[in-house]
Amino acid sequence: MQPEQPSARTVGRGAKVRAAVHAAALAELVDKGYAALSVENVALRAGVHKTTVYRRWKDRESLLTDALGEHLAMDIPVPDTGAVETDLRALARSIVQTLTGPTGQAVLAAMFTGAAHLPEIAEARRHVFDDRLTRAEPVVTRAVRRGELPEGTDPAELLKTLAAPIYLRLLIAADPVDETTADRAAHITLAAARAGALRAPAS
Amino acid sequence: MQPEQPSARTVGRGAKVRAAVHAAALAELVDKGYAALSVENVALRAGVHKTTVYRRWKDRESLLTDALGEHLAMDIPVPDTGAVETDLRALARSIVQTLTGPTGQAVLAAMFTGAAHLPEIAEARRHVFDDRLTRAEPVVTRAVRRGELPEGTDPAELLKTLAAPIYLRLLIAADPVDETTADRAAHITLAAARAGALRAPAS
Repeated sequence: MQPEQPSARTVGRGAKVRAAVHAAALAELVDKGYAALSVENVALRAGVHKTTVYRRWKDRESLLTDALGEHLAMDIPVPDTGAVETDLRALARSIVQTLTGPTGQAVLAAMFTGAAHLPEIAEARRHVFDDRLTRAEPVVTRAVRRGELPEGTDPAELLKTLAAPIYLRLLIAADPVDETTADRAAHITLAAARAGALRAPAS
Repeated sequence: MQPEQPSARTVGRGAKVRAAVHAAALAELVDKGYAALSVENVALRAGVHKTTVYRRWKDRESLLTDALGEHLAMDIPVPDTGAVETDLRALARSIVQTLTGPTGQAVLAAMFTGAAHLPEIAEARRHVFDDRLTRAEPVVTRAVRRGELPEGTDPAELLKTLAAPIYLRLLIAADPVDETTADRAAHITLAAARAGALRAPAS
């Protein structure tokens, strides 16, 4: 006899519960902060029993890391409009959208309400940031190939320059962050890159 | 009879206790984080009795806000070297020094260990940031007057562009932050400003 396999229906239900608990965990994080986050409240919000949560995640830390990891891993499309100016604007706008949307809010809440000390959260933040940098690199290499940017322009430097003013406004200055922020970031970055200020640092 | 005046010795001792308790509060914040911060441990570290602390501050929140407020208010010299390039480099280096020094560490610890939700902390962060922007404005206006930067260059935009990559590295990318970071930030900002990308946004 074969070992019992979960039926399609069970798998479907499992995925649904998982998604509901993830969403509830992120929503609780945004509303109450990390310090007040409890498995009980997450279960209540997701409409499941707390033993259902504990069966899948051993504690709130692993639940949170799992929920954030899944949402952060979602693909962000890398623009390829044929011109560096429109590519950078599209990239900056997608950074703004992510950071001001539900996932971004949850990540910021995790960082600023006491979860930042969890090594998994710090690691996830770095990893996701590095991963996005790497995936956006073609925007820069294509622009150099088309002769729009100087030879030797460093993709990582350029993309950090693009992201920096958006993060600063959101995290420190508490200024509004919108499409204008994105377009200005793209404009500044392009000017610096064209002037050759974003070449790889001499090592 | 006159009301009793504190003697010079009492005042001197009061200021000393205040400074010691402030320093202990910031050190505890950096070492243990906000969630674990207790008046007992601060008193122990400062070498005073906890009633001495409670006589001056009603709880850990007001102690922390007071300690951070005092340290954040410390004057940062605004450079005036006669050339925009060296002025911006000096400014960027002083941002790096502040953020990587004991006060900066304490501020970051406050932000990332659960104290960010305290309205006083959020307000202090914004206030200090705005205050520094305002005080550094002459660096930009002098450069425009000397003809080193285009007419209409916006001081706040320029200074945010200067600070942004430093904060990004420290908060998100977790890259090392040092004089090279500062010099690159100055270089990028200058290139963007000279290209006219840091003019005031059209409103």
